[in-house]
Amino acid sequence: MGSCIFCKIIEGKIPCTKVYESSQVLAFLDMSPVNPGHTLVVPKKHSETIIDADEQTLCDLIKAIKKVSNAVMKAVKADGLNIGINNYKAAGQLVPHLHVHIMPRFENDGLKLDWPAKKIPDMDEIAEKIKKAL
Amino acid sequence: MGSCIFCKIIEGKIPCTKVYESSQVLAFLDMSPVNPGHTLVVPKKHSETIIDADEQTLCDLIKAIKKVSNAVMKAVKADGLNIGINNYKAAGQLVPHLHVHIMPRFENDGLKLDWPAKKIPDMDEIAEKIKKAL
Repeated sequence: MGSCIFCKIIEGKIPCTKVYESSQVLAFLDMSPVNPGHTLVVPKKHSETIIDADEQTLCDLIKAIKKVSNAVMKAVKADGLNIGINNYKAAGQLVPHLHVHIMPRFENDGLKLDWPAKKIPDMDEIAEKIKKAL
Repeated sequence: MGSCIFCKIIEGKIPCTKVYESSQVLAFLDMSPVNPGHTLVVPKKHSETIIDADEQTLCDLIKAIKKVSNAVMKAVKADGLNIGINNYKAAGQLVPHLHVHIMPRFENDGLKLDWPAKKIPDMDEIAEKIKKAL
């Protein structure tokens, strides 16, 4: 997909703060995090939403979600974790390439699922912690 | 899990508005829907969160999520779909048995991800539409 920003990230043409990669999946920090450690998990094979992704891609994806979720929880010492997939524009999908938000949560972090972005200064450090916890 | 409310629903000891069932997974309408068609997909094998679920259970689960999502979209003629998994109490998990929210979205439906529950009068009718679209 020549114009897809996530395909370009997967191909290495646009940089990202990578936290996990396999032959099927790439995970990197969200540039607009709701909390420290907010990560995107993206299948390398392009599809727009979960509905048009094939089953093998989805199995690979959910195994990666589990793996990265566990690492993110440990890395940022989270109390909880919201996993979200927005499908189509009406649901808030901004990039039309299937991707999964992994959003760590903390007791009384004030998020009421309007999920305002926070400015996180130490992105690389957090990415390193996650990589180490994998 | 003797005291788990979703295990009791799976065992048929507590009623639900079922929309899909396989040997591994049960899907039923959420009793506090954010929009018509809001469905829960639940693995029959008990685990608390995605982190302690086994990989085969997760593959079965995500295949069911895709199948049910497609049916819900068609059944309620949705414009989009949010998929959400809340892990642990700090992330808003109310029932400690892994479950996936499938929440249909409509253009200008006013949801800002504070997801207030709506009163949906025709629950059985919507369930039937989803079953037919499977």
